[in-house]
Amino acid sequence: MTTGPLTILPVEGSGEIGPGDGIAEAIAARVTVSDGDVVVVTGKIVSKAEGRLVPFDGTPEAKAEIVASESVRILRRRGDLVIAQTRHGFICAHAGVDLSNVPDGSAALLPTDPDRSARRIRDGIARVSGREVAVVISDTFGRPFRRGLTDVAIGVAGIAALLDLRGELDAGGRPMRTTEVCVADEIAAAADLVMGKASRVPAAIVRGIDRAWFGRGSVHDEVVRPPIDDLFR
Amino acid sequence: MTTGPLTILPVEGSGEIGPGDGIAEAIAARVTVSDGDVVVVTGKIVSKAEGRLVPFDGTPEAKAEIVASESVRILRRRGDLVIAQTRHGFICAHAGVDLSNVPDGSAALLPTDPDRSARRIRDGIARVSGREVAVVISDTFGRPFRRGLTDVAIGVAGIAALLDLRGELDAGGRPMRTTEVCVADEIAAAADLVMGKASRVPAAIVRGIDRAWFGRGSVHDEVVRPPIDDLFR
Repeated sequence: MTTGPLTILPVEGSGEIGPGDGIAEAIAARVTVSDGDVVVVTGKIVSKAEGRLVPFDGTPEAKAEIVASESVRILRRRGDLVIAQTRHGFICAHAGVDLSNVPDGSAALLPTDPDRSARRIRDGIARVSGREVAVVISDTFGRPFRRGLTDVAIGVAGIAALLDLRGELDAGGRPMRTTEVCVADEIAAAADLVMGKASRVPAAIVRGIDRAWFGRGSVHDEVVRPPIDDLFR
Repeated sequence: MTTGPLTILPVEGSGEIGPGDGIAEAIAARVTVSDGDVVVVTGKIVSKAEGRLVPFDGTPEAKAEIVASESVRILRRRGDLVIAQTRHGFICAHAGVDLSNVPDGSAALLPTDPDRSARRIRDGIARVSGREVAVVISDTFGRPFRRGLTDVAIGVAGIAALLDLRGELDAGGRPMRTTEVCVADEIAAAADLVMGKASRVPAAIVRGIDRAWFGRGSVHDEVVRPPIDDLFR
């Protein structure tokens, strides 16, 4: 697992993507992608492009109803805050329902199948540009124990989400155990550094990732932790 | 919050740092740092340089004893795995005690005060190179709900750990609430992408971070979540 120098480029002007727009086309029109690039796209623009907006009148009651409809289980409540498990198996605030950076009178739901969305964007970029890229779809989640939000991967295509280093030797020649690195989350976090929350840059290119990491990948299959394996719910 | 293109460079050959060695000197000797760089250093080499190695005979009993001495509270146990709270307030496996990439017969403990370690490295780099950098000390933690490990920040100097975007307006002109981004963790994650676990690259340069993020910072004060605020313990 060695990746040379990395470059992370914001895709400027990608914020105006609306329902039905092609994300692959919009990205390819704004940046010259290269073979081996990882294209990181926020779940928000995927939701918009896929029409995952629902009417929202701004009342707490309506919000509670939308959150409930997106949840399969409520894990914790405190005041306004609801931590819920989504159908995908993600544990996040408000089941991923998002009221920022969406048109007035609407709320954005998470994409139905973010791995599939990532595959579609990857195929679209191959079609319009002829380039083989990997795609990571990101969202902004909180987490237990540590304050502050970070971007994580909710879907991937063309790249492993976890890199399994178990069984390899460390630099001292000792076998490394339980060193499965969630490179998809690290790539999402890295991309967020150039995105900004208020500056309408919902896509970025991460250039220089080791091509050995490319291949089949799925956040759903690799990263979502089955409840039975989880020590904290 | 906008950061232009970012470049992330591994600091090659920084893996041979031993007890008493100066990390600042070692980094400055191997890479030309620039004003505004963020220098990311793994906690492991900080522990080695600060002599935070203890004798370890490889037995489970000895390991349990070391982990207990580093813990203020055990949160969960399953088989071999112990999730503990350290004196710093971190929640992590084995209270951060690490047996990989350390000399035979020893175990590495977390640095005593990683924010202070970061300040020392920052001051050292200023002294030997004349450059003003920020420093992030990283470690590899697991987390609830999601499989795989990611690098997070355990100490910072010269940069905010959290970026508070509360009260700013989103791209739709709506006030953004609870958007405190843990940029320190995102920087640590980004740097891990070029470090590798088995390839002895325990330092990286993140170049291009918005200078507005620079200033006072502390993982302990900003990121460690007080137990009373935590919904998951």
